[in-house]
Amino acid sequence: MTRTTTLLRQLLNASRLTKAVGAHNALTARIVEETGFDCVWASGFEVSTSHCVPDSNVLTMSECLSAAQDMARAVEIPVLADCDSGFGGVNNVFHMVRQYEAGGIAGVCIEDKQFPKMNSFVESGQTMLAAEDFAARIQAAKHAQVESDFVVVARIESFISGAGTEDAIYRARVYECAGADALLIHSKERIPRQVNDFRENYSGGLPVIVVPTTYPEVTVDELEAKGFAMAIYANHGLRRAIKATREAMVRIQIDGTTKNVEEELAPLSEVFALQGMPESLKRQLEFEESGRTAVSRTGAPGGSADPAPAEPE
Amino acid sequence: MTRTTTLLRQLLNASRLTKAVGAHNALTARIVEETGFDCVWASGFEVSTSHCVPDSNVLTMSECLSAAQDMARAVEIPVLADCDSGFGGVNNVFHMVRQYEAGGIAGVCIEDKQFPKMNSFVESGQTMLAAEDFAARIQAAKHAQVESDFVVVARIESFISGAGTEDAIYRARVYECAGADALLIHSKERIPRQVNDFRENYSGGLPVIVVPTTYPEVTVDELEAKGFAMAIYANHGLRRAIKATREAMVRIQIDGTTKNVEEELAPLSEVFALQGMPESLKRQLEFEESGRTAVSRTGAPGGSADPAPAEPE
Amino acid sequence: MTRTTTLLRQLLNASRLTKAVGAHNALTARIVEETGFDCVWASGFEVSTSHCVPDSNVLTMSECLSAAQDMARAVEIPVLADCDSGFGGVNNVFHMVRQYEAGGIAGVCIEDKQFPKMNSFVESGQTMLAAEDFAARIQAAKHAQVESDFVVVARIESFISGAGTEDAIYRARVYECAGADALLIHSKERIPRQVNDFRENYSGGLPVIVVPTTYPEVTVDELEAKGFAMAIYANHGLRRAIKATREAMVRIQIDGTTKNVEEELAPLSEVFALQGMPESLKRQLEFEESGRTAVSRTGAPGGSADPAPAEPE
Amino acid sequence: MTRTTTLLRQLLNASRLTKAVGAHNALTARIVEETGFDCVWASGFEVSTSHCVPDSNVLTMSECLSAAQDMARAVEIPVLADCDSGFGGVNNVFHMVRQYEAGGIAGVCIEDKQFPKMNSFVESGQTMLAAEDFAARIQAAKHAQVESDFVVVARIESFISGAGTEDAIYRARVYECAGADALLIHSKERIPRQVNDFRENYSGGLPVIVVPTTYPEVTVDELEAKGFAMAIYANHGLRRAIKATREAMVRIQIDGTTKNVEEELAPLSEVFALQGMPESLKRQLEFEESGRTAVSRTGAPGGSADPAPAEPE
Repeated sequence: MTRTTTLLRQLLNASRLTKAVGAHNALTARIVEETGFDCVWASGFEVSTSHCVPDSNVLTMSECLSAAQDMARAVEIPVLADCDSGFGGVNNVFHMVRQYEAGGIAGVCIEDKQFPKMNSFVESGQTMLAAEDFAARIQAAKHAQVESDFVVVARIESFISGAGTEDAIYRARVYECAGADALLIHSKERIPRQVNDFRENYSGGLPVIVVPTTYPEVTVDELEAKGFAMAIYANHGLRRAIKATREAMVRIQIDGTTKNVEEELAPLSEVFALQGMPESLKRQLEFEESGRTAVSRTGAPGGSADPAPAEPE
Repeated sequence: MTRTTTLLRQLLNASRLTKAVGAHNALTARIVEETGFDCVWASGFEVSTSHCVPDSNVLTMSECLSAAQDMARAVEIPVLADCDSGFGGVNNVFHMVRQYEAGGIAGVCIEDKQFPKMNSFVESGQTMLAAEDFAARIQAAKHAQVESDFVVVARIESFISGAGTEDAIYRARVYECAGADALLIHSKERIPRQVNDFRENYSGGLPVIVVPTTYPEVTVDELEAKGFAMAIYANHGLRRAIKATREAMVRIQIDGTTKNVEEELAPLSEVFALQGMPESLKRQLEFEESGRTAVSRTGAPGGSADPAPAEPE
Repeated sequence: MTRTTTLLRQLLNASRLTKAVGAHNALTARIVEETGFDCVWASGFEVSTSHCVPDSNVLTMSECLSAAQDMARAVEIPVLADCDSGFGGVNNVFHMVRQYEAGGIAGVCIEDKQFPKMNSFVESGQTMLAAEDFAARIQAAKHAQVESDFVVVARIESFISGAGTEDAIYRARVYECAGADALLIHSKERIPRQVNDFRENYSGGLPVIVVPTTYPEVTVDELEAKGFAMAIYANHGLRRAIKATREAMVRIQIDGTTKNVEEELAPLSEVFALQGMPESLKRQLEFEESGRTAVSRTGAPGGSADPAPAEPE
Repeated sequence: MTRTTTLLRQLLNASRLTKAVGAHNALTARIVEETGFDCVWASGFEVSTSHCVPDSNVLTMSECLSAAQDMARAVEIPVLADCDSGFGGVNNVFHMVRQYEAGGIAGVCIEDKQFPKMNSFVESGQTMLAAEDFAARIQAAKHAQVESDFVVVARIESFISGAGTEDAIYRARVYECAGADALLIHSKERIPRQVNDFRENYSGGLPVIVVPTTYPEVTVDELEAKGFAMAIYANHGLRRAIKATREAMVRIQIDGTTKNVEEELAPLSEVFALQGMPESLKRQLEFEESGRTAVSRTGAPGGSADPAPAEPE
């Protein structure tokens, strides 16, 4: 089986656009996989929301890693983890990569802002890191990885912090020189003007990723035609769930019964399927049968052993 | 402020029906609170689903506790934690209660099945514990609690395991005698016949809780009229979220853009509100201002101190 | 029972010197308590060492909190937690205090260095935070606490960073003005000259704590006479354990048997006592007996209940 | 680099006796490695003690795994994890192996007792599992593993529970038939009579492990001569540390100063070495230098990029 690190690298370098979707736990990662997407984005914004804390590095690396690890165990597609600005300085980045890689994550994305970082859609607190300091973090990440295919994405916040295309391109070149495997160019404009500018002016060799949260009109075909490598729908699943859950709750409150929402619910059987319950029940019976077989082949205490061991199938 | 343990005790003993709703993380607990419900049910089924593992004690107590604790920190209404059969024997129950209580949970619910327990809607594996063994676990729970108002609910699985009303009533009396604070009577029939039978035949003094998952037609008014103390809508939020999230994912896949789902999403501003971002930004400015004030009141290094300290507001 | 927050506050304001000792897990905290010390110092240096990571904020707040919480559950004396520079900015400090307080910790100590901080005995990386920025963190901590007796200690690193007495005194006044409950003055000189200088020149009202790691000759009586409130023996237990464990390992290696180290080992019975095994076995029998009593008082299924419930003793 | 799973398998099948030593965290694992032992035993008894809870499955699998994982990250020798009776039934064993293997553990040891298990040196609670039920758990473990070299050790508690040699041999044959990779035969006699009996009468092909806690006179040479594959010194490091730490604490209490224990302490420099601080400081300087190089090679914003990226060394 191809490793997810290798898979992610292949996806980033493929000619067609890779589609990643945000998740915040194993379940939502599995839904992303089931609905045919290529990659799970272990979103800091989603994980923070699931804990009801601000998306400003209030969650610790341990909490983010734990969520990403759970996702990686639940799916076979690669998990790319949103690691904010790296949870501190170069040492933090080094240890972070060691732990994310050991946790089965295919790659990490770090952004060129100071720690603690502030969510990019908030006006204040968008202070960038000096290019050389962020390049040092990229170096730390690349040295820390054990497997050669582990992916380090450098996220450029020039447009978010108001610094413009020239700064973004400059940083792209520095980060490429420092060893980044891909670039993520972020923008909060209502149209993809800034990211298109960046894509047109960036002449380096790295794949470029976009996050079309504020410019939802753009299509996969348009992004592919522009030469982008990946689009991340970073938080749409969670935002849909919040609205739907709230509406169901309100209905149950008003109606004093759940009967009017029953048709809008995933049936229990589907939930059990997402849990892996059917396979689990089947395996349990098989193990119990194998246990009895081992006993019956062995004969009575004091007797002689059957030389042929029960074969795990 | 009234403690949540006391609140839960008051709710269970109130004349009107208490409505609890299942949650699996801080976010869904907060939605339960916001939509006006009385209590959060930290559902083992939901938490297992969120981790994509079978609801059969595959998750450890640590993982269940961590989820329940996160919920308790996010809401002011009480959290009642589904603790399966108590994660082992009497010692496990003892330590479990110590940790759940220390974690801010208002009460725990344990069921009279063997460890590892199997989800009640699965046919196989519904082996009950002897009444005296479960009574010992209730005793362990009651001895472990530090605060007198902490609630221990004894869940009776007689109907689930096919044992009938007489067994359920017998167990109710034993568990009441052992010190339980409330009873939860579970049933997987399509109508509330069994639970009504139980309620009519149980003459003891404990509040009785139902979980109308398979009999969704029943209303709050009907349950209240029958004399039940609490109804738990145990997993409806999650099941709504699964269906809605999946549908949104499919739409994005087909459309190659998110524009057609945008209206079905919670806007970013609402997500930030759930995170507590606005309060966080406001607090940050205040602390920074207070920090500057402390410096300006102190005067220059080497000078003399202003005797009046800055007052935390 | 007096809360540990209140106990810590009383200790800091008592006339005699309070003696705290470093620990890194529940076991070492319990040994500190058993040998008669007043307070456990949940040492960042010790916890980092136990994880084999540099004491430079490589461990996350979650990992430090988890260790401190374990300690707090194992002892009745207060736990004062070494929280480095607060794990980030004001928001991180705010959430940190909420979580440490909820975790049963009596107080936290934060130092006026940048995040990530470097251990004070390392030459490089001793960059201080501006006084106003650290004052903002103190304000954040004081606003976050729920219980009024929770303690926030401000640690001054002026001597560590080479800034001298005047800076230390200035900062002491600023931090006092910002609401700190106590000051910790750190020094890495071989004699207590710097801390004595500080104590003589500080005219404010806060208790002053010292950490005599590099000036081990100083005695409790001398520190008390100088007017210090607390001495923290920050890492002596762990450093003793490292040396002793290593030596025992070497002996076992050389001898090819453990017989020559047996007398230097805590006997199994003492280890069980530290685990709380005897109480646990006793409780188990009592719960089982209580369970049987509940059954016998209830009578047969279908019979009538004994009205008197078994009383938890 | 050879994987630790492969290393452990080679050690178990080597002609010389393999020496494993118990540890409870990364630090003690590193000391085991440094002093030349072959393997770390992630001891349930030690980890329980470090948390001050009884060694009777009060700790959850999550807590045991977390400790074992920390050890595995700190050393290059294999970690064999004591997994009690498997933390539940076959499903729990299946998920346990998945997580231990993903966590970098080389192998697990499970024992044929019921869950929750009681420490083998305690008189009560030594109830064995039926051979076929334990064989089912071995099957579950062997099916769960992904890498073929992952090791599953079956621990036989016949002597502990008073069942005798015949039962032990019978179980050895069943467990071998079920697919176990090695056997651990436990005894609490003061001499190695029982384990020698077992070794002489067991004619199967699996390596046999002993734990000479209660028979410390036995030597490596004697065990090797008898044909044992591995000896585990299961808790000597911790027991040495407890005694030494206590004595140091008492001295500090009595003396009112640490000066008389200073010579018995590991110096700070050795503690920093165990943390990996020197390497960390060196790496930090290198990354910062690399960051500056990336910037200087890139030229000014708006200029053209140097085509040659900085090479990670």
